[in-house]
Amino acid sequence: MHDAPEQDLDSRYQLACQLAREAAQRGLTLYRQRDQLAVEHKGGFNQDMVSAADRELEDLIRAQLMAAFPEDGFVGEETGAERLDARCVWVVDPIDGTACFLHGLHNWCVSIGLLVDGVPTIGVVADPNHDEVFHGGRGFGAWVNAQPMRVSEATDLHAGLLGVGTFYADGKQHFMPFLGKLLDAGGMFLRNGSGALMTAYVASGRLLGYYETRLKSWDCVAGLALLAESGGRSNNFLRGEGLLKGNPYLVACPGVYDQVAGMIGPSLDAD
Amino acid sequence: MHDAPEQDLDSRYQLACQLAREAAQRGLTLYRQRDQLAVEHKGGFNQDMVSAADRELEDLIRAQLMAAFPEDGFVGEETGAERLDARCVWVVDPIDGTACFLHGLHNWCVSIGLLVDGVPTIGVVADPNHDEVFHGGRGFGAWVNAQPMRVSEATDLHAGLLGVGTFYADGKQHFMPFLGKLLDAGGMFLRNGSGALMTAYVASGRLLGYYETRLKSWDCVAGLALLAESGGRSNNFLRGEGLLKGNPYLVACPGVYDQVAGMIGPSLDAD
Repeated sequence: MHDAPEQDLDSRYQLACQLAREAAQRGLTLYRQRDQLAVEHKGGFNQDMVSAADRELEDLIRAQLMAAFPEDGFVGEETGAERLDARCVWVVDPIDGTACFLHGLHNWCVSIGLLVDGVPTIGVVADPNHDEVFHGGRGFGAWVNAQPMRVSEATDLHAGLLGVGTFYADGKQHFMPFLGKLLDAGGMFLRNGSGALMTAYVASGRLLGYYETRLKSWDCVAGLALLAESGGRSNNFLRGEGLLKGNPYLVACPGVYDQVAGMIGPSLDAD
Repeated sequence: MHDAPEQDLDSRYQLACQLAREAAQRGLTLYRQRDQLAVEHKGGFNQDMVSAADRELEDLIRAQLMAAFPEDGFVGEETGAERLDARCVWVVDPIDGTACFLHGLHNWCVSIGLLVDGVPTIGVVADPNHDEVFHGGRGFGAWVNAQPMRVSEATDLHAGLLGVGTFYADGKQHFMPFLGKLLDAGGMFLRNGSGALMTAYVASGRLLGYYETRLKSWDCVAGLALLAESGGRSNNFLRGEGLLKGNPYLVACPGVYDQVAGMIGPSLDAD
């Protein structure tokens, strides 16, 4: 038997950091050979792709997490969910930003998050292209490499950029009115193709916030743990079936959160 | 007296590559100390910023270009224009993506282009964060580092991402309808904050295309020279007062250019 989760968070944090770094380095090797990877479009010819690299990295991460903590649950983008009734549930995206990875656009990362009793508690986002690991969690602080990180102190949308995204077809009806309001208010958007990285950039004060009309949990549980320790705010992303099916998603520094949430309107927290 | 431009393109090409690399490396040093840079918002508190780094790098590039080719003209984002009646006119953005540079978002570059008789002829886009220099020109081919590059062969917007941007306030009326049509057609957008990089990514086949409601010449003359040698198409960006005041801008691989231009409509080539 393993100890109760509260005694084991240290070793889970260390392992998550180690695995994210290891997977990111392996990912970088595969990225440099990306022309040779087998690629599938999920559900037909669309923007949702998966490659042999995603599968290899998820297998690597899942096998080592399950070997070390066999009672823990697991949700992965590529290999599905198991033991969701466990107190500790890992939520993993082996390559967040697969389209960027496959097209050579540099903005992708490995994202490993841990829920404890349903709460984002540990997060590691490893970006090998920029030699950055964002890591932290409740009681551990929030760090980019060895530097502590903190959300922006801005209170005005002119002061920086807002990450955005609307990957799934049902999001356009909410996205277009929001974007019009953002531009009218003098804000500016960025979409780099990786939700986990954009969340890490909010946690480190580089983006003011990040709104996606629908995100999946593996894209953001790690980031939500980082955000909780770096002073950010978020909507109630994990409500309802958020863990398995996703929800609308907003994270931001406290100084602009309410303004951005107001631009999105009630769809942000609708069931 | 210098030789006629046709005899001197080799040395101009070599110097442009050398200066772009040198400025990019100096930029990287300043980027790592960006918290210490003085920053101004151009024309009040808005998204258009300039830092001491932009000014230092433009001074460095301009001084060396003018020392080597004193009869050439010059247009720089920060220091203005001179000798525009010369056959050879350099068009330089010392840091394209200043907001990304200042916020720590990694997507910025040095862009050095050369017009000969008004035609984009040599281009160098140097990205020190990803150790990539995109370079080439008419008669020189198009290269990323030592590898030849080519636009995408895609003929369908599902096959990849389209760079977008609408930095200036007058662009929203054209941008929002365009973006709606792109999403309806199953396309997906990316905005990384650097027009020169997004153009280089079109030239290297990583993006299908790139549309900006209004771009300035220093953001794209280098990229247009790359694109001409890598098989891409572009609108008539330099018409009218494009060199000094900018114009709407579209570059794309041949297989999607007409479809994207149709989504933008007549504003793309309006005076």
